[in-house]
Amino acid sequence: MVKQEGITVKKDENFSEWYTQTIIKSEMADYTAVSGSIVYRPKSYAIWETIQREVDKKLKKLGVQNAYFPLFIPEKYLMKEANHIEGFSPEVAWVTHAGNSKLDERLAIRPTSETIMYPSYAKWIRSWKDLPLKLNQWNNVVRWEFKHAVPFLRGREFLWNEGHTVFAKREEAEKEMKDIIKLWDSFCKDYLALPSLVGQKSEKEKFAGAEYTWSTEFMMPNGKAIQGPDTHFDGQNFAKAFDISFLDENEKKQLPYQNTWAISTRMMGVMFAIHGDDKGLVLPPKIAPNKVVLIPILFTKTKDKVMKVAKDIEKNLKKYDGILDDREDYSAGWKFNEWELKGIPIRVELGPKDVENKQAVIVRRDSGEKIVVKLKDITSSIDKILEDIQTSLFEKAKKALYNSIEEVETISELKKTISKKKIGKANWCGKIACEENIKAKTSTKSLNSEFNSKGKGKCFACEAKSEYVTYFGKSY
Amino acid sequence: MVKQEGITVKKDENFSEWYTQTIIKSEMADYTAVSGSIVYRPKSYAIWETIQREVDKKLKKLGVQNAYFPLFIPEKYLMKEANHIEGFSPEVAWVTHAGNSKLDERLAIRPTSETIMYPSYAKWIRSWKDLPLKLNQWNNVVRWEFKHAVPFLRGREFLWNEGHTVFAKREEAEKEMKDIIKLWDSFCKDYLALPSLVGQKSEKEKFAGAEYTWSTEFMMPNGKAIQGPDTHFDGQNFAKAFDISFLDENEKKQLPYQNTWAISTRMMGVMFAIHGDDKGLVLPPKIAPNKVVLIPILFTKTKDKVMKVAKDIEKNLKKYDGILDDREDYSAGWKFNEWELKGIPIRVELGPKDVENKQAVIVRRDSGEKIVVKLKDITSSIDKILEDIQTSLFEKAKKALYNSIEEVETISELKKTISKKKIGKANWCGKIACEENIKAKTSTKSLNSEFNSKGKGKCFACEAKSEYVTYFGKSY
Repeated sequence: MVKQEGITVKKDENFSEWYTQTIIKSEMADYTAVSGSIVYRPKSYAIWETIQREVDKKLKKLGVQNAYFPLFIPEKYLMKEANHIEGFSPEVAWVTHAGNSKLDERLAIRPTSETIMYPSYAKWIRSWKDLPLKLNQWNNVVRWEFKHAVPFLRGREFLWNEGHTVFAKREEAEKEMKDIIKLWDSFCKDYLALPSLVGQKSEKEKFAGAEYTWSTEFMMPNGKAIQGPDTHFDGQNFAKAFDISFLDENEKKQLPYQNTWAISTRMMGVMFAIHGDDKGLVLPPKIAPNKVVLIPILFTKTKDKVMKVAKDIEKNLKKYDGILDDREDYSAGWKFNEWELKGIPIRVELGPKDVENKQAVIVRRDSGEKIVVKLKDITSSIDKILEDIQTSLFEKAKKALYNSIEEVETISELKKTISKKKIGKANWCGKIACEENIKAKTSTKSLNSEFNSKGKGKCFACEAKSEYVTYFGKSY
Repeated sequence: MVKQEGITVKKDENFSEWYTQTIIKSEMADYTAVSGSIVYRPKSYAIWETIQREVDKKLKKLGVQNAYFPLFIPEKYLMKEANHIEGFSPEVAWVTHAGNSKLDERLAIRPTSETIMYPSYAKWIRSWKDLPLKLNQWNNVVRWEFKHAVPFLRGREFLWNEGHTVFAKREEAEKEMKDIIKLWDSFCKDYLALPSLVGQKSEKEKFAGAEYTWSTEFMMPNGKAIQGPDTHFDGQNFAKAFDISFLDENEKKQLPYQNTWAISTRMMGVMFAIHGDDKGLVLPPKIAPNKVVLIPILFTKTKDKVMKVAKDIEKNLKKYDGILDDREDYSAGWKFNEWELKGIPIRVELGPKDVENKQAVIVRRDSGEKIVVKLKDITSSIDKILEDIQTSLFEKAKKALYNSIEEVETISELKKTISKKKIGKANWCGKIACEENIKAKTSTKSLNSEFNSKGKGKCFACEAKSEYVTYFGKSY
């Protein structure tokens, strides 16, 4: 066992170093010999399993079924939708050989699976009775990033789900867009304790192949925004490219409408980054694999007495997947630091005096607050405190998000806002040329635009009419 | 919706065609544009999810944790263990390019993950306190088969778990070998209703890199054997190749002992093949995603009355994930055929006369037996019948397995047994040269050897002393 040292930098002094140290030292992830690919160690994989399980339940309620399509995509299939391939081809990993043989045709490792799934859809969908078709897969994808990799946030392989749904009518597809963006937003709020900006991506930033994209955007502590789960309305673009059609109730041939949507392992990194503090991770209780750690304070004379009570308490901690840390070769202080680094929401301390007084000390990871509770009330106290931690983390993150937004009316105001590590909110025209100009002058991009608002007056950056209220920021 | 036609060949007349038709027409899988890779459609993926969930629960009870390691393995890592690479290199898919760039070093797509996991193990394991380390991943692997692909049974990409455990002591690792082989055997029995031959693989057929391998072997209806889940005792082979060592309690450097073990999506194909009949799939109730289908017999005059009762029954079918098939544009007979093809264990028929008599007709998929039950007893009847189907399927498969075994005392007897599509059981020396001779003369290979028996007298194939009681057969 390598002794864990604590985090040696402060989060607000050197965020990037703080983040890496926190992820690696808390044993969430580790680097590997494959540049840009990490190990998801048990502690982060358990969180991903919870995300999968909870999201999957919600998707099944929407009538979505899981399936699994091949990892490989023949080159000619990947090339079928022009915008799509333009977006993805710079980052595709190519298989060219198998054993000692060169392949006749290169195979792409899926960066996303539209182009391998939709030929099957074209085969399966014949009649209106086959619709809607709502398939989802939980899998790994590869996008060969040439930028510096950051564990969870940007890497060459990540885990995600990809939903690919097909509807007879445009309205049905657009109704699902609303259901999905609501699902993403509420899942991030309720489980990850993360507030987001929900809105529509710009023409320039939308998904390659989509008519429009809706996203959730999160604010990182270093002032950069990062995109979270999203949903894309593809209209009939892929149906045209892949010959997906159906006979309607009048036996007339029609093209269906499609959506795709995803949440990825990136969200774990966003959560670690936003909630963590100088001591390490702070995990929201609803997502923490172990919600409580019980640390008996052991002295030679009173050890047996304390351990007996600790064992009794341990039984009540099962529902929290509680850990009893009764290792004797580490000091209590060392253990406190270790579990703080790992982000366990609640620490329960039990010393000889506590045993005498039939009490224990609960320490909140988020605030450090110590609460003395009677042993008979311990689970009801823990329940209440876990709920409170969940809410507090969300409220704190929400405050940080909204404090970081400034309304801007000119490009130079946006520059000033960005220099303060904040996000600019502006009336905007939405045009690609205008966005390119903004990017050239400020190094920002549009994050997304609020639903149901066209803004007022003119675009903050050009002379055109405002069509959106849009957030701009530096981004991952 | 493409109208399903039934299976057009008989299972015992043309097994291979029967198998393919059954898999494709029941919508378990479909071919894709990627040769050798299938789509796992929702009906089979739901079965895989059940397999994962149930196996995962059992593994967690053994103290196993899940993690996720990269898909890619740098060529020099893959090459580290000589026997291992010799076994796998002929079937490795190689990534050579990313975007427009040629990679400095080729990356293998994992055929199995020892060589990407163990460098991390070497880093993480320092002291006896870090052991045992028991990690598992559920992922996709690629083995570039040049033989004819068969859905589920042999393909270029499949889904599996891979457990990789590390112990300080040989006895601990060997104890886990027993736990795992017992887990595989009982899981296959209890859930898939599949009996297996459990035993040790020969020197020639063991896992590339292992000291020894234990396997489960199944008998397919065409007389070929197929290997199921297995577990490998790697001794210190990989510890040596990857420099995995630890300081024991006396601070002395030691090499640990390792196991690896896996169950794959192949087992779904084995189950479909063994239990299916001329009408299509027969799914064991414990693994069937939908255990019951209710088909109301609808005539114009009595439709409302029958549907009202059907809806009442439907509520009670929730715990079976029951399906109410009230489609009016298909005849009852057409529906019977469809659900039989898809293997749903129980069909409940409800006609106007049944409603009058407060009864329904239960039809067993395995035997075709019809049982009239009172509506008030319907769930207790279904419970009992589902259990009975599960047991019957297992007993039938067990009989088929043991009927297919013949004791053989010479190579020419083995040939005769094989010509009858059976398995030979023989006293055997276990030597690689002898196995090669047997293979050359009979086109069979050893499946595995019974535990705790060295056999009697001499090897059936050569003059050496018998060391094993071994099963020989043609195999997938």
